This record gives sequence, C-alpha cells and structure tokens, in this order.
Amino acid sequence: MTDSVPGESVISRVVRLMSAFDRSLPTMTLSGLARRAGLPLTTTHRLVQELVRHGLIEKVSGDELRVGMRMWELGARGSLALGLQEVALPYMEDVQATVRQHTTLAILDRGSVLYVERLSDPESPLDAAHIAQRMPIHAASSGLVLLAYSDTAYQDEVLSLPLEAVTTDTITDPSIIRKHLADIRQRGHVAIPGIGHMDWIGIAVPVFGIAGKIAASLNAIVPRGEANVPAIIPSLLTAAHGISRTLGADNRLPGSRRL
Amino acid sequence: MTDSVPGESVISRVVRLMSAFDRSLPTMTLSGLARRAGLPLTTTHRLVQELVRHGLIEKVSGDELRVGMRMWELGARGSLALGLQEVALPYMEDVQATVRQHTTLAILDRGSVLYVERLSDPESPLDAAHIAQRMPIHAASSGLVLLAYSDTAYQDEVLSLPLEAVTTDTITDPSIIRKHLADIRQRGHVAIPGIGHMDWIGIAVPVFGIAGKIAASLNAIVPRGEANVPAIIPSLLTAAHGISRTLGADNRLPGSRRL
Repeated sequence: MTDSVPGESVISRVVRLMSAFDRSLPTMTLSGLARRAGLPLTTTHRLVQELVRHGLIEKVSGDELRVGMRMWELGARGSLALGLQEVALPYMEDVQATVRQHTTLAILDRGSVLYVERLSDPESPLDAAHIAQRMPIHAASSGLVLLAYSDTAYQDEVLSLPLEAVTTDTITDPSIIRKHLADIRQRGHVAIPGIGHMDWIGIAVPVFGIAGKIAASLNAIVPRGEANVPAIIPSLLTAAHGISRTLGADNRLPGSRRL
Repeated sequence: MTDSVPGESVISRVVRLMSAFDRSLPTMTLSGLARRAGLPLTTTHRLVQELVRHGLIEKVSGDELRVGMRMWELGARGSLALGLQEVALPYMEDVQATVRQHTTLAILDRGSVLYVERLSDPESPLDAAHIAQRMPIHAASSGLVLLAYSDTAYQDEVLSLPLEAVTTDTITDPSIIRKHLADIRQRGHVAIPGIGHMDWIGIAVPVFGIAGKIAASLNAIVPRGEANVPAIIPSLLTAAHGISRTLGADNRLPGSRRL
C-alpha cells in the first residue's frame, strides 16, 4: 500500500478511503480504515466526518463504518452498469438454469475485468467473480473474450504489460494469448480451465452493442472436470444474442429468414 | 437548485456533480453538467478533469460525460445494498412470476424511500420506482411499511415535516398516516392506491433482519383496478419471510411445528 502523498488532492484521498472497503471487509473502525487506506488518522477523521454527513460513509453498530447507501445510489443511478444489468438479468436467469454454479456479466474497465452482474447457486464453493470485483484481463475467460474483440492497439497495450500468474495455469506468454484471441474471434467463444482458479473452468462469449462494438462478456464458471462444456456454450451464445439484440446490436444472422 | 456556496468543500461539490446524473439524464456535456449542478464552469472543468482521471466520471462519445464504472464499483463493492440484492433476488423472481408488473425492494435512507432492487415486465407502462431512485416516505407503500416498524422517535420526526402531495391521493395528514401505521403493524401488510402514482396501487410487506429489526420492504406495484390484491399479498408475505430468514431474522411462526 502506498503511503499518503503530501499535497494529494481531496478526491484522491476519498477514493483511497472508499477503495478500502470491499466484500471481504465491508465494515471497519476509523483507525482500521486509516491504516488500510494508508492515510494519517487525523486526515481520515476529518474526511470521514464529512463523508458521513453526506451519507457516503455510514456508521453501523458501535464505531464501525461502511460504504453509505448514498454512495451506492450516486454510483448506480446514472451508470452504464445498471443499464447492462437490467438488460442482461432475464437472459442470465435462463442461462443459470442450465449452469447452476455462476453466470456472470463482465466488462473491461481501467485495465481489468469488472464483474457487473452475477447469478449464483448459494451452495457453490467458488468464492470469486463477485459483483463489482475485478480480475486481471488475461486471467479470466471473460477478459480474453473482451480483449479478442477490442481494437489491436488496446490488445498491444494490455499484452505489453507484465502478466501476473494468478494460478499455475494462468497463461502469461503474450504470443500464446494472441493465438487464443485469434481462436476466440474465429469460434465465437472460449473455454479455458484454471486460468483464474485452479479448480474451475471459465466459459465466455461476447455481447455486442450499438454498431457491433463489444459491450460485455457473458460467462459461466463451473467446476473443472465435472462441467458439461459443450452443453453450456449454446446456452451462453443464445442468451448473449438476446442481450446484444436488446442493447441495439444488429446481430441478425446472415441467411436466417422466416420463410 | 441552490447555487454554489463560496468555500463549499470539494466533497460537497463532487456530490453535487454526481447527483446531477440520473436515469433520465445519464450523459451531459461539461456545460450542461455545470448548469445542472449549479457550479461555475471553471470549477466544474477542474473537478471533472480529476474525476475522469480516477474513473469516477467517464467520457462517452464526443464531449458527453457519464458516471464512471469506478464510481459504480466503489459504491457497490462494500455496500449493504449489494448484500440485500443478493439475498432478495431469487425470492423476488418468485414474486414477479405472480405480479408481472413491478416487484421492488426498498429501504429508508436519509429521510426517503430508496429502491435497492427491482424486477419488471419490460412492457409495463409505469416509469417509476427504478433502482437507486427515491420517493417520499409517506407517498410510497414501502415507505409506510418501513415507517410502521421504525421506532416512535423516527416516526415523529418524519411526520413533523411538511408532507408533499405527490398525487391528489397522497395522504398528507399525519394523524391519518398514524392510523395507517397502526393498521400495518396489526395486519402485516399495506395496499394503498394512488399515493405515489394515480393509476397504480402499491402493496408492501416488511422484511426483517437480525434481532427482528426492520431491514427493508418488499413491494408490488400494479395497475389500480386491474390488480388482484388478495392474491399478491400472500406471495409477498411468503417471499419476505424467506428473505428475512436468510438475513438472519428468527421469524419462526409461533405454533408452527413439524408434527
């Protein structure tokens, strides 16, 4: 964690504070928050007081703090995420009836995969790919699909950065990733085991928006070995087609007419 | 709209900017944003530049701006809203199969009803009660249910404020509202037509959390006159019971045993 920079702007400090909270640590004391955000206690105290006044941070029981409902509201109300969720949810429910582990919808944002929606079986042992969480692009099947349909300049930029091995099966060689990207563009889907989680396989297909631009990736995450991949792919493709159509992509198949 | 206050804090100005975006106006130009937020163009320009750098605001096509995915992520990742949504969604789907217009989940926050989840029929003509939108407490059936199970001090506070008539059927007399609250506590549900939208009826039941404290309200919104209210109430009650149980409320019914 980087330390507080003298002269760092208020916005930058607020982002540090808000970033300190996540699913695994949704509540913190003031001193815990200061420590995790890497900010002095006095600065944290002063900023938190004002954030609480605006409802961006809330006091829960005792002296625990958490992200406020007002912060959620401001982030959700005008955001693209909500639009994608609303369009995708009914189609994702149809897929989840087949997948029965995890069905996710992801986008690329600021150099990583960001999950914007997820449906799960509450009994599933996989604790990952939660809503509003991130994964490295090359370590998620969604990421590879999103990259495959991105422009070449962006692909080059991503593949020129150091690629972390999240598991021993994560592919970190740019030339092998490029072959996968070409393969995805040709076949329209990807199914790669172990790249994000050793025991799981990610299966992903593209979702297109207006003017046929890549908009999101629809993804199933299922146990490696047990999964019936050939049965899941058509389910994902069908749902992704419906989401793309609703988003305004003209994805009529060539040669498919009502005769 | 209040004008920019000299010496107003950065946090307060950022809240103004982010609040300017909503579902009806998700993208704006810089000058449009300055106008709607009531801030000088130079201030807006400077703040937006930094917000864009952090991903809290995004540039879309041309010079249009919208709420950034990073803002959505920070608001969602550690928030209570996401937990409520995850727990409630499967139960809400069951209700929506009966309701077929709108099924919503709402909480009280900062003096109003805040909708945290909604399922809808895309064909429904009602354009209201969207996710992350607000309604006055007394003008929503969810609000009345949430107020009925709140503590007396909070009820007094809400009912001492001026109560706006959102429609001609909105109840604005505190003594009549108090009678409704008592009635809700006794019957466990409410069904009031027209208080938020003239042509619609809201039906709402309470959802409880740990220690039996009110956590949310589950709500159906259906066309006035057409709606089969007596059939919808048991559906809502059943789902609310399931959500409450999952949230950790001990809501075993007295006298219900497996014999």
